[in-house]
Amino acid sequence: MSHYYRLVVSCPDRVGIVSRVSGFIAGHGGSITEASQHSDLQAGRFFMRYEILADSIGMDAAALREAFAPVAREFEMQWALTDTRRRPRVVLMVSRESHCLVDLLYRWTAGELDCDIPCVISNHEDQRGLVEWHGIPYHHVPVPPGDKAGAFAEVQRRVEEASADSVVLARYMQILPPSLCERYAGRVINIHHSFLPSFAGAKPYHQAHERGVKLIGATCHYVTEELDAGPIIEQDIHRVSHCHTPGDLVRFGRDVEKAVLARGLRWHLEDRVLIHGNKTVVFA
Amino acid sequence: MSHYYRLVVSCPDRVGIVSRVSGFIAGHGGSITEASQHSDLQAGRFFMRYEILADSIGMDAAALREAFAPVAREFEMQWALTDTRRRPRVVLMVSRESHCLVDLLYRWTAGELDCDIPCVISNHEDQRGLVEWHGIPYHHVPVPPGDKAGAFAEVQRRVEEASADSVVLARYMQILPPSLCERYAGRVINIHHSFLPSFAGAKPYHQAHERGVKLIGATCHYVTEELDAGPIIEQDIHRVSHCHTPGDLVRFGRDVEKAVLARGLRWHLEDRVLIHGNKTVVFA
Amino acid sequence: MSHYYRLVVSCPDRVGIVSRVSGFIAGHGGSITEASQHSDLQAGRFFMRYEILADSIGMDAAALREAFAPVAREFEMQWALTDTRRRPRVVLMVSRESHCLVDLLYRWTAGELDCDIPCVISNHEDQRGLVEWHGIPYHHVPVPPGDKAGAFAEVQRRVEEASADSVVLARYMQILPPSLCERYAGRVINIHHSFLPSFAGAKPYHQAHERGVKLIGATCHYVTEELDAGPIIEQDIHRVSHCHTPGDLVRFGRDVEKAVLARGLRWHLEDRVLIHGNKTVVFA
Amino acid sequence: MSHYYRLVVSCPDRVGIVSRVSGFIAGHGGSITEASQHSDLQAGRFFMRYEILADSIGMDAAALREAFAPVAREFEMQWALTDTRRRPRVVLMVSRESHCLVDLLYRWTAGELDCDIPCVISNHEDQRGLVEWHGIPYHHVPVPPGDKAGAFAEVQRRVEEASADSVVLARYMQILPPSLCERYAGRVINIHHSFLPSFAGAKPYHQAHERGVKLIGATCHYVTEELDAGPIIEQDIHRVSHCHTPGDLVRFGRDVEKAVLARGLRWHLEDRVLIHGNKTVVFA
Repeated sequence: MSHYYRLVVSCPDRVGIVSRVSGFIAGHGGSITEASQHSDLQAGRFFMRYEILADSIGMDAAALREAFAPVAREFEMQWALTDTRRRPRVVLMVSRESHCLVDLLYRWTAGELDCDIPCVISNHEDQRGLVEWHGIPYHHVPVPPGDKAGAFAEVQRRVEEASADSVVLARYMQILPPSLCERYAGRVINIHHSFLPSFAGAKPYHQAHERGVKLIGATCHYVTEELDAGPIIEQDIHRVSHCHTPGDLVRFGRDVEKAVLARGLRWHLEDRVLIHGNKTVVFA
Repeated sequence: MSHYYRLVVSCPDRVGIVSRVSGFIAGHGGSITEASQHSDLQAGRFFMRYEILADSIGMDAAALREAFAPVAREFEMQWALTDTRRRPRVVLMVSRESHCLVDLLYRWTAGELDCDIPCVISNHEDQRGLVEWHGIPYHHVPVPPGDKAGAFAEVQRRVEEASADSVVLARYMQILPPSLCERYAGRVINIHHSFLPSFAGAKPYHQAHERGVKLIGATCHYVTEELDAGPIIEQDIHRVSHCHTPGDLVRFGRDVEKAVLARGLRWHLEDRVLIHGNKTVVFA
Repeated sequence: MSHYYRLVVSCPDRVGIVSRVSGFIAGHGGSITEASQHSDLQAGRFFMRYEILADSIGMDAAALREAFAPVAREFEMQWALTDTRRRPRVVLMVSRESHCLVDLLYRWTAGELDCDIPCVISNHEDQRGLVEWHGIPYHHVPVPPGDKAGAFAEVQRRVEEASADSVVLARYMQILPPSLCERYAGRVINIHHSFLPSFAGAKPYHQAHERGVKLIGATCHYVTEELDAGPIIEQDIHRVSHCHTPGDLVRFGRDVEKAVLARGLRWHLEDRVLIHGNKTVVFA
Repeated sequence: MSHYYRLVVSCPDRVGIVSRVSGFIAGHGGSITEASQHSDLQAGRFFMRYEILADSIGMDAAALREAFAPVAREFEMQWALTDTRRRPRVVLMVSRESHCLVDLLYRWTAGELDCDIPCVISNHEDQRGLVEWHGIPYHHVPVPPGDKAGAFAEVQRRVEEASADSVVLARYMQILPPSLCERYAGRVINIHHSFLPSFAGAKPYHQAHERGVKLIGATCHYVTEELDAGPIIEQDIHRVSHCHTPGDLVRFGRDVEKAVLARGLRWHLEDRVLIHGNKTVVFA
């Protein structure tokens, strides 16, 4: 099966970037199968993502990176070049609720998520059976109120042992310590129940019900030190009415949460999400 | 053409309400063409709306009200019985932007809004031509920062002179004084740009753009003294992406605002919106 | 936990139905927790669904049915009265693809689908592991082109042995014989992989891609003898663009299919779907 | 205010197109503010659209076209280069219903549609007042069943006299003759009152109601000789239920029709729609 190189670039905007990059690729005979660009005219910044048929280029990824480095320097690029043959490693973290986990495991099994899942980490035992049935190791790391630091040291050890590229908080109801957020900046994805920035805090669906809203939502975002304030990847909503109980809102919330997280994660895995400051460019 | 009586009831929930009310109507030969009920089990309150073919009942609305009054007392009902032959009178208020106004006037002309529009009130002259072309009087009531009280006295005089049943703030960028809010409680409808309770305040679409949200929205609600916190009638959203400028968000916002306001107003005019505390029951 | 009686009625429309039925219930002290009515003015037919707190009535379901029978006769009703303590029995049928099955099993485990699943029947072995992991018996009934009749006799035997109330074709890629459709009329639910009535037939997503549509959809409907033409319960869509391959459409299709089937099945299990001719009334 | 050149290209896919085109633009100092590409891997065809800041290039549009012609020849391009200072001329055609017309005129007035509207043509007199109030000439061209050829000769004369670039059938309930379709191929936009390919033909909302569908829709497409079968630009839907009458469906249909047509037209005017065979690439 064909594999691809994905070149993702962000740099100060100026004349000639596309010409220089596409010229570089064409010069090596590279066949571009998908190309996306965006100029943020306010920020004066340029973003691009190219998908290149690997076989059309007579080099492996390492050699291509070396060849491209001078171009990148010339334009002061933040950049990455990935090879789709190297599957990213994603650690999932969950608490008790399984809706996001079940959904992600189905999609992974069905080939919708192009990654390895070296392990699942949870502060509870509840999902062990499901995870192990999928042939994935399950690590139970309790988070006692009195020793969160110890627990998160253990979490970090597990994540590093797994050589994780990314971490997905698939309804992991604990707040990660700043050190972990920083260590994996731009690589930890969270799903937030309810429509940020509204109804932050506990029991959001009950708050929404109390307020009599006609829509509930979910937000998928990168985790930063400031709680629930990181760059947004994707959002969606579900209509509700006076007929619906708080329990119904929770149920609808599960559906929108899992859909939004799955979309966000897939885009992340395909290098479609570029972070700039507290915002994202999503070449969906 | 047939006309209808609309009976709208809210009362403490208990056994036998539907039986008593439907028995009353059947006893007068009344043919119910549409019936909606809702029990708010948490609040212990019952809501209903019946649409009755007027010709099937041998009474005019006044007589029917008198006959129903004892039933209403028995169940401690808040209630109203309207006759669709009496068209409600709706005063529209606008500032400079016309998107909601144009939309409402089209729908009114097309017969989608069953009401009279005795006049339009504005703090600017901009929309006079459009309004008068529709044959509707236009009152320019400036709101000088130094004499808001005087201006709103004039507004109230105009609204009362028009015998208005309801007032629609179709992008009227002024805050109504508490006296007016109270005088017309449950009868002043506002459209709020952006997704309440997020991004309250000025330039909401620019705030939303700054935050990098993937959805923008609008909320139609009844006006109460507390700004933008009244009972929500309807909400909707529009997807946005990194491609969109603040100007695009404003443009999408116009579309969602006018759609949400038109739906909310139509339901209000058809007596489909029942207020209970700070929430609504909408028999859409 | 409280249980409920659900009374579902369809009859010729005339004055006094609601009064008679609600009077009957009130006469027995019945507390109605949810009530829905609909008059189809074109067809002259009336539909209703009441949810009654069982403990508020001093009778079991059988006695209540007997007491209600004269009312039903008087108004020529088609009707049913169910007790939520008796969980309906639903047989799932699948072929190779598991997206609907995984979704339904998750919802069933999470308590979103109030039914028993006595068994899963499939013409393939693929899903045995998943089904048995959930503790549900799995019957492999191959459907050889040369002996479909024999296969469906076996299917029918399995369904009857399971005392199934309903059958869900959760992507079961075989056409049921007329005898089975008739035997279980109004009780076999199918998910159609496309937005009926467009693109009926094979490879609908490829048809849709070929036509360059901007939306794809799914339809949940009751199975009738005429293929894909039975009463529609629910539909939904997913946006697509020129960027998407037929494979992407298939993937989006899976999401919309499982969502639509899950909603349709839940409504069916809660007696919210009333069939009239080739259409449905859905008290969602 | 800045103006832009828009370069739109479609050609056989091969290595080096982007490099050649972007190199050409960079070589003239051109600053690209928006760039979109698409490779249709099945069809082996490449599509691109560049928006270039005109002031960054030291040439007018004619000179730039001449300079680009050799590149275009080299890659066998179908291409166009437009200057946003030249506003396209769009003739609107309507019959009796005004919802799309009112919507387009509002958007045009509000600056959402960057075009001139030299005239409106109708087979009825109904919309003359509205159109003339906007300062636009109105031509009444009746289409008698006995002399359609004469009528369409008159229509064509009016369209040519107006130097129209595009024609919008904003609910013009007549079928254009093949000669006109061919003469303005890819430049006549229609809004189809239903979700194609379903319910083509008369009274689509009544057909949809009869079938009991849960969604209705609208399709914006280019007109071709084969009725309602031209390349689709945009589609959208509106949810309906058993509560809704055919009249409600017509009303919802108006909302979705006008929204879909407005989006399609705006994209067309901004050169975002590229036709290939019977499909479109829409760089929205």
